[in-house]
Amino acid sequence: MRQFIVIGHDVPTDPDAVSLADLPGAGRLDVLCRCLNSAFFLSHDLRDNVRVWLVVGDEYAIRFEGSELRRLNPDERSTAALVRGALAAREKAIGSMAANPSPGVYIRTQSLSGLLESVADDGPLVTLHEDGQPVVDIDPSAEPTFVLSDHHSFDDAETALLAAHADRRVSLGPEPLHADHAITVAHNYLDTDGYNRY
Amino acid sequence: MRQFIVIGHDVPTDPDAVSLADLPGAGRLDVLCRCLNSAFFLSHDLRDNVRVWLVVGDEYAIRFEGSELRRLNPDERSTAALVRGALAAREKAIGSMAANPSPGVYIRTQSLSGLLESVADDGPLVTLHEDGQPVVDIDPSAEPTFVLSDHHSFDDAETALLAAHADRRVSLGPEPLHADHAITVAHNYLDTDGYNRY
Repeated sequence: MRQFIVIGHDVPTDPDAVSLADLPGAGRLDVLCRCLNSAFFLSHDLRDNVRVWLVVGDEYAIRFEGSELRRLNPDERSTAALVRGALAAREKAIGSMAANPSPGVYIRTQSLSGLLESVADDGPLVTLHEDGQPVVDIDPSAEPTFVLSDHHSFDDAETALLAAHADRRVSLGPEPLHADHAITVAHNYLDTDGYNRY
Repeated sequence: MRQFIVIGHDVPTDPDAVSLADLPGAGRLDVLCRCLNSAFFLSHDLRDNVRVWLVVGDEYAIRFEGSELRRLNPDERSTAALVRGALAAREKAIGSMAANPSPGVYIRTQSLSGLLESVADDGPLVTLHEDGQPVVDIDPSAEPTFVLSDHHSFDDAETALLAAHADRRVSLGPEPLHADHAITVAHNYLDTDGYNRY
């Protein structure tokens, strides 16, 4: 299982504040939609060994389960509708119980801190950083959990949390990448067993 | 200069047939918009050494010039508006003269065949194919022109044209990728000098 945690700093938790005609205006929800696209889509197929967590407002964690997803389409607008549908179900998420508004989509009340603790035993936690270890020095057989940020850098509190939880800081290359592009590169590294299998 | 040619088989040449509220319905224009995003965006920067050609209906070639672009944003909807604006200028493209509806965006009357001839001297022409040579066996110092297709495979006529023009068939990995993801992987290969520079 490959996992990607993407932090959305500015996306509103109120679905009524999300206009599908202006995703950049909805706290750059377009960025998170492209991350979902990169995480799940293959040509004419979905990756079923992938789980994505969107952390919205450090208050809700929306989980997308590749093996269960049925209504994900590649375009940003329809993906945003799925996220908005999850936010609309947020009041049904009570305590640690998640709501499940559509197949493969779950929302629960959870901060980044709680989420990092809950995935701690799943596999190595990896953050991406320009000064990190080159990805080619990392064992591709591990099933990592990557933590990425939207259009903002990690803030101080997140940086401290990640310093406490992350097993590795990794560099994917000399150019700073958008989060969705980073997901694509990470997948390719793992797909090819570290650029050895084509 | 890195170049990407992306063939849009179903995108209408009439801008009035493009609704920004339904990009998948506009011949999967969403796919081409994501290709532009992958080709040009770095985190907080644009790649100025990149040129993208969208071939629409085998009738028009829309050129995006990284060093000149001013109004490209990452989200699909605003990118689609730029493409629609180019299509709206198509009647000003007369003979081999291109129209230039916005900074860095040009449209001219040209088929795929003519375009492949016009870029023949720019660098090696590369197509992506699951049975192609692993990308890691390719010299990353070349400045290639990649040819990709939208959600459809290359048709028979395109396949014949590419067989005549392409210098290499390359595989980026064992999983079949969307065109925009393939562009991201190709960039990363070149950025890292063949996975050697981080």
